[in-house]
Amino acid sequence: MIKAGIIGATGYAGAELVRILLGHPDVKIVWYGSRSYKDKRFAEVYQNVFQIVGDVCREDDLEALADEADVIFTATPQGYLGGLLTDKILSKTKVIDLSADYRIKDPAVYEKWYGIHHESPELIKEAVYGLCELNRGKIGKARLIANPGCFPTCSILSIYPAAHGGIIDMSGIIIDAKSGTSGAGRGAKTDSLFCEVNENIKAYGVCTHRHTPEIEEQLGYAAGETSMVTFIPHLVPMNRGILVTAYATLKKHVTEEEVRALYDVCYSKESFVRLLDKNICPQTKWVEGSNYADVNFKLDLRTNRIIMMGAIDNLVKGAAGQAVQNMNLLFGLPEDTGLTFVPMFP
Amino acid sequence: MIKAGIIGATGYAGAELVRILLGHPDVKIVWYGSRSYKDKRFAEVYQNVFQIVGDVCREDDLEALADEADVIFTATPQGYLGGLLTDKILSKTKVIDLSADYRIKDPAVYEKWYGIHHESPELIKEAVYGLCELNRGKIGKARLIANPGCFPTCSILSIYPAAHGGIIDMSGIIIDAKSGTSGAGRGAKTDSLFCEVNENIKAYGVCTHRHTPEIEEQLGYAAGETSMVTFIPHLVPMNRGILVTAYATLKKHVTEEEVRALYDVCYSKESFVRLLDKNICPQTKWVEGSNYADVNFKLDLRTNRIIMMGAIDNLVKGAAGQAVQNMNLLFGLPEDTGLTFVPMFP
Amino acid sequence: MIKAGIIGATGYAGAELVRILLGHPDVKIVWYGSRSYKDKRFAEVYQNVFQIVGDVCREDDLEALADEADVIFTATPQGYLGGLLTDKILSKTKVIDLSADYRIKDPAVYEKWYGIHHESPELIKEAVYGLCELNRGKIGKARLIANPGCFPTCSILSIYPAAHGGIIDMSGIIIDAKSGTSGAGRGAKTDSLFCEVNENIKAYGVCTHRHTPEIEEQLGYAAGETSMVTFIPHLVPMNRGILVTAYATLKKHVTEEEVRALYDVCYSKESFVRLLDKNICPQTKWVEGSNYADVNFKLDLRTNRIIMMGAIDNLVKGAAGQAVQNMNLLFGLPEDTGLTFVPMFP
Amino acid sequence: MIKAGIIGATGYAGAELVRILLGHPDVKIVWYGSRSYKDKRFAEVYQNVFQIVGDVCREDDLEALADEADVIFTATPQGYLGGLLTDKILSKTKVIDLSADYRIKDPAVYEKWYGIHHESPELIKEAVYGLCELNRGKIGKARLIANPGCFPTCSILSIYPAAHGGIIDMSGIIIDAKSGTSGAGRGAKTDSLFCEVNENIKAYGVCTHRHTPEIEEQLGYAAGETSMVTFIPHLVPMNRGILVTAYATLKKHVTEEEVRALYDVCYSKESFVRLLDKNICPQTKWVEGSNYADVNFKLDLRTNRIIMMGAIDNLVKGAAGQAVQNMNLLFGLPEDTGLTFVPMFP
Repeated sequence: MIKAGIIGATGYAGAELVRILLGHPDVKIVWYGSRSYKDKRFAEVYQNVFQIVGDVCREDDLEALADEADVIFTATPQGYLGGLLTDKILSKTKVIDLSADYRIKDPAVYEKWYGIHHESPELIKEAVYGLCELNRGKIGKARLIANPGCFPTCSILSIYPAAHGGIIDMSGIIIDAKSGTSGAGRGAKTDSLFCEVNENIKAYGVCTHRHTPEIEEQLGYAAGETSMVTFIPHLVPMNRGILVTAYATLKKHVTEEEVRALYDVCYSKESFVRLLDKNICPQTKWVEGSNYADVNFKLDLRTNRIIMMGAIDNLVKGAAGQAVQNMNLLFGLPEDTGLTFVPMFP
Repeated sequence: MIKAGIIGATGYAGAELVRILLGHPDVKIVWYGSRSYKDKRFAEVYQNVFQIVGDVCREDDLEALADEADVIFTATPQGYLGGLLTDKILSKTKVIDLSADYRIKDPAVYEKWYGIHHESPELIKEAVYGLCELNRGKIGKARLIANPGCFPTCSILSIYPAAHGGIIDMSGIIIDAKSGTSGAGRGAKTDSLFCEVNENIKAYGVCTHRHTPEIEEQLGYAAGETSMVTFIPHLVPMNRGILVTAYATLKKHVTEEEVRALYDVCYSKESFVRLLDKNICPQTKWVEGSNYADVNFKLDLRTNRIIMMGAIDNLVKGAAGQAVQNMNLLFGLPEDTGLTFVPMFP
Repeated sequence: MIKAGIIGATGYAGAELVRILLGHPDVKIVWYGSRSYKDKRFAEVYQNVFQIVGDVCREDDLEALADEADVIFTATPQGYLGGLLTDKILSKTKVIDLSADYRIKDPAVYEKWYGIHHESPELIKEAVYGLCELNRGKIGKARLIANPGCFPTCSILSIYPAAHGGIIDMSGIIIDAKSGTSGAGRGAKTDSLFCEVNENIKAYGVCTHRHTPEIEEQLGYAAGETSMVTFIPHLVPMNRGILVTAYATLKKHVTEEEVRALYDVCYSKESFVRLLDKNICPQTKWVEGSNYADVNFKLDLRTNRIIMMGAIDNLVKGAAGQAVQNMNLLFGLPEDTGLTFVPMFP
Repeated sequence: MIKAGIIGATGYAGAELVRILLGHPDVKIVWYGSRSYKDKRFAEVYQNVFQIVGDVCREDDLEALADEADVIFTATPQGYLGGLLTDKILSKTKVIDLSADYRIKDPAVYEKWYGIHHESPELIKEAVYGLCELNRGKIGKARLIANPGCFPTCSILSIYPAAHGGIIDMSGIIIDAKSGTSGAGRGAKTDSLFCEVNENIKAYGVCTHRHTPEIEEQLGYAAGETSMVTFIPHLVPMNRGILVTAYATLKKHVTEEEVRALYDVCYSKESFVRLLDKNICPQTKWVEGSNYADVNFKLDLRTNRIIMMGAIDNLVKGAAGQAVQNMNLLFGLPEDTGLTFVPMFP
């Protein structure tokens, strides 16, 4: 059994890790880390695991945990792991970081968008960006995984085949994203109150959202050229789900079949990316609770554009599920172990 | 592998059966029955199983299915199975009926509340009421299971220990129930439209809901005396979940500890019924997507009453999950096989 | 023009007062009191009145306000006004208190249920309980109005005709209430977060909710005898609305027509209470945004019970609308002035 | 009093017209037209107006109505009015059409996007596009008003100042729109069921939505050149509200102040368009139930783009409210008569 520790277990992403790992046949959770709820039973904080989890929340002590765990998941605020992680810790255990601290290769870019000084830039280089469908090979050999952000996961999977296929203008991609409210976390903020979110929709972080450089970097690798993205997220009155609607200008004339072939090459063998049938639009509800990413595209020859769409569950493929997928790769398990839930509908 | 057929697979309960059975290690679905979507791929109707289920919907042909399947689940309108089921079919296959046709022992009561003439009353006697926690022994030997209704499941599990323990007046129980909208089915009715249900709550079927006699009959067995119930369901703007708040007058002075002991005796060894800690109220969200029933009670000595509360997912413990639990018992499998999902939160 | 001040203008009830008073032809708001947002423009806190309200939030200074305003609305936490109100203030201005401080005649009962020492019990006696339909006459001559709670308003209007008519057993009324989330206020609490409330329903304050003695006192006056109530509120995933389902045992045989006559006598001339047609259940959506209370009843002769139902908008008839209705009475205006909004649907 | 008739009064837009006109000081509704509910009391179909409206629904008889009404509102399916309207009718009464039949000047474009043969193309020319803020002058003298679509209203108001100001490339505007579910109407369709819409978001009508040519035509007039728009609507789990996020490439270097000046010129004197403060994003909730359109923009000099955002209530400014605003202009009333509701929050 793989011994897993979770730092930040009482946030929504941490709790989703708990839900998923409890169903994983090869994992035992040995550490429920939570600063806010230290010494409280985890099942009092998340009543869904009442009588399933008996453990008490422990301090977020990374060093101590490194001695106990084969793998540590960190579902912590930006900058937290960057300030604590050391080569010594990585020599004892694998780390899968759900924060952004090791996702961006250039620390200057990180510091600019996040406004945080990076305290362990020397570790960025060895970190592998854990979008399994793209970096499967490198992930297996890594010690440190930078688990992708929720918006980048959905955006990149939606756009990658077109970018990689060289059919779109990389300098002017527009990503209009819509997220469920669990993406805002469990912090008690007025803006996240039921009455403020319900029956409402709004854009936020317009042109300044921190996921922008992460998307640009990865799409740049995909296309082999610099990419520039206008990224606007919106808050939607639902618990889970991200929908991405991405717009790009076509660089050359292509047919439906040619583009479909580009997507098929990338995804026909993937367990968790489903290219939908022609004219079927992704819906977040169809992937809820699962590790699937549903993608599709539509050519608009009238305006010489392609519209690329994708849907994920932000807490699963956008966070905890993808982290477990990375863990499976790190430990040589079949990639879908413990992740074969059917999406829940309705 | 158990070969399972589903009649009525494209309703919400049928589709939930599909979701659950796909994760069951010992079952193969051999028949997706649907009159409305005959010859259409099931995954076109329920896009959540795209690339998971390749089958095409077939006619609701019970006789033909009896030759192919080890067990048939019928998620069909009231009266449908009652008009088709025969001893011959039951001699070939087990039947788990999610409709109400065989739940009520007295056909006259059925006909009064349902307004339907029962066409196979001779089969009612052998049918076993499939509330596993109460009838486990009989279920294992049955050919025909009457899978309980969603409201009765939640109501009976909430009240049973108090009724069985002889502490409440059985002649005046009040059940105020609240249900998510999936209980209304997938039929295209104005009353079920998003804009009619959202931001709204109402009672319906006041004093006339068909689940009333089912609850009264089962609570009568529990208490060993006739029971009389005022049952009022309400429609809540959420997809899944039933919450029951039941009120009864205490017949004698009891303490918290005594009542807790009554509940503990019933449920401490149950896999799927969780008696919550003192003063913790059940919430539908804490059981969503799972086969759990969370129950608790509160004594109000000021008014000499007990308030009994329970929460289930109406599509799981209230329908498809319980049906699979019954199937496990029918086939001698561990009762929780394929049913150990952790509830999804948020 | 009546000069009105609001203490606690930035809570949900305060902001609803603003919305309603802005449309009132005879009122000018002269004071937007808010401790939390002092010196901030009110329209930055409630963007719905952007370009409509230019005022800046001011301190909650009751004494200063008494010199400026003809009427003060206090939408403040329990105990706040009780600690500040004096005869001197009441000699200068009228006060309509949306908190519970002057609703309960017996200070000992108040202190027991609220756990707060009442600091101005001498003023309780002169306060008039501002349920306009019942106390219209007294309200007109009062200096201090105790504006009813949201649950009591809906409960009392639903039950009053039956209680007053002497047809129900007053010792065992059960009130199962369901409330939208704005009733929990705008405080940043985890329990009020979107992801905790959405897709969920639960009971809370079981047998201990502070509105219980208020309901019991008023129903006692109605029936001319002591009343005892089991009151259980539930939190519903919607912004606005309260639905009450109340259960009582009939003391004598009555017909539908007799009960309807009792309700008609009470409400046929009321502007804001609508007795629905037979078999039509109140729905919160049908009164949303309005000052209406929709009520109806159902006799269940099988169990010898009456089920009494009512729906209001908790922020309007349950708080701000009723406060304005009281103000109209205080100042001799037609009772519905500024309150004739049609409910918004959907 | 203006005598108003409504054809299609029992759809959501028709019922919203009823709600608004009931509060209008100068209007009396003389005809509640409804094919589906003919001879049924309107208040049985829309219980919110119980005891407010006593009328019975009548046939959709345009000719008869023309003799009774000073103005007819048609909230009818596409093609309906086009097949019935005549010069004779227009000689007797004013017509405000909420369908698309007279919005597009070129019948060939209408027929291509709507797939409907236009049966009265000769009347298109005299119809005035009723976006009051742009066409105020012409509206006052018209007999036939083409009330704008909900998406076009929000899109055009958001983009107009930039288009008219000549700062954006008109050949490549992208409009990503999000709509509440009342936009789908009250028809009983599976896709509009609560359980299908709730907890879900999806795009629909990708590149084929019928509002596209209407937006292109109007933006073309604004800029004085042909415009080409990629328009993608999304269905959001809320009752009311449209949010538009529009993306355009800047044609020249502009500053925040310059763009703000362009918007100010257009909207500073408008009653119903509110240009929000810098960095404040429109939210649908802040305009709910009102006739306001909240707009704002954000310059992204990094990508040389402008993001233009707008929010309206689709049933008010996007349909019934705008129709009444047009009626006020037609009859020489102050433009905001009967429309000064404060948005409802929460």
